Amino acid sequence: MPFQSRKDQFHLPTGMIYLDGNSLGPLPRAAADRVSRTMLDEWGDMLITGWNRAGWMAQPMALGDRIGRLIGAKAGQVAVGDTLSIKVFQALAAALAMTDRKVILSDSGNFPSDLYIAQGLIRAFGHDLELRVVAPEDVAANITSDVAVLMLTQVDYRTGRLHDMAALTAQAHAVGVVTVWDLAHSAGALAVDVAGCGADFAVGCTYKYLNGGPGAPAFIYVAPRHAQTAAPVLAGWLGHDAPFAFEPAYRPGDGIARMRVGTPPVIQMAALEAAMDIWDDVDMAALRDASIALTQRFIAGVEAACPDLTLACPRDPAVRGSQVSFSHPQGYAAMQACIAHGVVGDFRAPDIMRFGFTPLFIDAADVDAAVAVIARVMNEALWDNPQFQARSAVT
Amino acid sequence: MPFQSRKDQFHLPTGMIYLDGNSLGPLPRAAADRVSRTMLDEWGDMLITGWNRAGWMAQPMALGDRIGRLIGAKAGQVAVGDTLSIKVFQALAAALAMTDRKVILSDSGNFPSDLYIAQGLIRAFGHDLELRVVAPEDVAANITSDVAVLMLTQVDYRTGRLHDMAALTAQAHAVGVVTVWDLAHSAGALAVDVAGCGADFAVGCTYKYLNGGPGAPAFIYVAPRHAQTAAPVLAGWLGHDAPFAFEPAYRPGDGIARMRVGTPPVIQMAALEAAMDIWDDVDMAALRDASIALTQRFIAGVEAACPDLTLACPRDPAVRGSQVSFSHPQGYAAMQACIAHGVVGDFRAPDIMRFGFTPLFIDAADVDAAVAVIARVMNEALWDNPQFQARSAVT
Repeated sequence: MPFQSRKDQFHLPTGMIYLDGNSLGPLPRAAADRVSRTMLDEWGDMLITGWNRAGWMAQPMALGDRIGRLIGAKAGQVAVGDTLSIKVFQALAAALAMTDRKVILSDSGNFPSDLYIAQGLIRAFGHDLELRVVAPEDVAANITSDVAVLMLTQVDYRTGRLHDMAALTAQAHAVGVVTVWDLAHSAGALAVDVAGCGADFAVGCTYKYLNGGPGAPAFIYVAPRHAQTAAPVLAGWLGHDAPFAFEPAYRPGDGIARMRVGTPPVIQMAALEAAMDIWDDVDMAALRDASIALTQRFIAGVEAACPDLTLACPRDPAVRGSQVSFSHPQGYAAMQACIAHGVVGDFRAPDIMRFGFTPLFIDAADVDAAVAVIARVMNEALWDNPQFQARSAVT
Repeated sequence: MPFQSRKDQFHLPTGMIYLDGNSLGPLPRAAADRVSRTMLDEWGDMLITGWNRAGWMAQPMALGDRIGRLIGAKAGQVAVGDTLSIKVFQALAAALAMTDRKVILSDSGNFPSDLYIAQGLIRAFGHDLELRVVAPEDVAANITSDVAVLMLTQVDYRTGRLHDMAALTAQAHAVGVVTVWDLAHSAGALAVDVAGCGADFAVGCTYKYLNGGPGAPAFIYVAPRHAQTAAPVLAGWLGHDAPFAFEPAYRPGDGIARMRVGTPPVIQMAALEAAMDIWDDVDMAALRDASIALTQRFIAGVEAACPDLTLACPRDPAVRGSQVSFSHPQGYAAMQACIAHGVVGDFRAPDIMRFGFTPLFIDAADVDAAVAVIARVMNEALWDNPQFQARSAVT
């Protein structure tokens, strides 16, 4: 069955083609009511009893199960909470605790925050650890037997380049390397199979393709073979086996539950629940087909119409996520001009114009309309205008 | 000027006397609209531009400034985000990085999660560190020159016992000990003066007395003398000096900004903003006077009416937070019976019935009505009923 757009389930501003769902997904129409119920009927009326009666305490695992289906995990293997940076820290620390080796291997296409988290961990606690950052194309050649942890983001946030999770994980395991996969630009973007790939740890966020809202919580997956022994370095009370026994000593919770830390963000979780209602019946293989059709159509259209833009993502869709990047020396101003003319993508330093394709609410007609706007911006040099040159703090 | 209740600014269920604002504060009436605006007008219509246009990116520091006023910090000294457990980890790790000593001193009245966080940190990273837990009354005698960090919660979550922050901090500093204060049951409960006390680090949560909502974010204060050198062990991108430059190496942000980690929970922050609108003009000294009047009245009333209940908090209000605890062998069932009859407090193992007093929305008439209900529950043994005996997962 061909993929069906769910455009009517999202609030999309009139006159805007939103190709930035890979940065912040749009509002699911049902989320506003869902959050309002949480505010008034749950927080307002149930007060403290909402932890049980409204199921707040169970949300992190229930939402984890629903996200798990999208990334190839079974129920009880994913927990939701905190931010992605925190989940990277948890996964990396737990992975390091599984080995005596001292090298963290990553690549320069990783999101900087993941590298920062490793740097912070090393500076504070692991002066004998080394963060070894290589070019994305050199990762495979650097998976050597001195590596402790391979920490990669599957889809490069700038170029959209897609790592082969199965092959790299297998190669890592062959030489005793533990893997930590960041699925920030994968979850909801393409079919991920953490179990099939044998990934040890995986983390991701829910405010991009999953449409959980600004500041929506992150998630963490631990392979079931590790879940009962993984070290919960951020040993918060809700990861305790009996949080409300208030015991003096930490006892890790059962499996993935130990990766919970503090009190869950109930209101954000309510918004995420509404977003997951849309995802629950999405076939990820069909979504991936739809995504590839959109990105191929967009690349063909832009390349035909905009000779000044250089493709900055893989041409082969098999090694590309659900985004398309073009480079241009005036990329920042060009993107601002596109936004002013109704096509919203984003800019990533130094020169990347990034466009995300999210089949839940973007269709072929949107692609064609976006190409027409981008062509006008580029060919009439609409970017050559001071109003588009000044950078804001957040791009 | 006497303290004025703001009861009309909160949604309080009819027929309920809510003495559990020290666990989860009630819904500020304005919060529902505020969150609805964030959902529809900001997330819905602004989408990614909300980070700038709606001020989302600035929220953690702006809210920190407003909380700072309540705890004796100046603007630019408090950041909001994450959960309290994460903020305890950040503060403790940063404090440990300031010294070569190896002992973390805490007390058995500390909230277990704080102790768990220390245990997790030690297990993962600090095998040469020691967590030394003493009785609350023995803390002062154990502040010795081998202690690295004194980590205490100012108000005991069970007994309400209030540590003397100024005296203990001074004593700690006299022997080179760094202090980490958890203000979970202090912020919004009494006048705190982190600067006047010379506290090095302080952390707290916003879902209790501050009424930020279930899962509202935490906060962290770093004394200005440390803020430019404190080590951000959780080195997330939003603590970077230039998050959107996407540099490969972490450079800590200016002062307290380095204690930000990942993407802030925008929807929770919107609810907290509405809650802080109520706090902005509260005189903390007047609030403390009102709180003491309420707790004294409650203790007198209960002790007069309920001979079976034993006071389990300090009798002297000067060394008591804004809660009152009584112990009873059937405390769990008794509290369930109170709740069923409209007086909501909570139970803390093994036998503590805990009642929080929050002058923003609790007044003397509420106290008198609560005493009458509790007296009936105890004197008619209404707790002696199977429906009140079975413990739920969350208490």
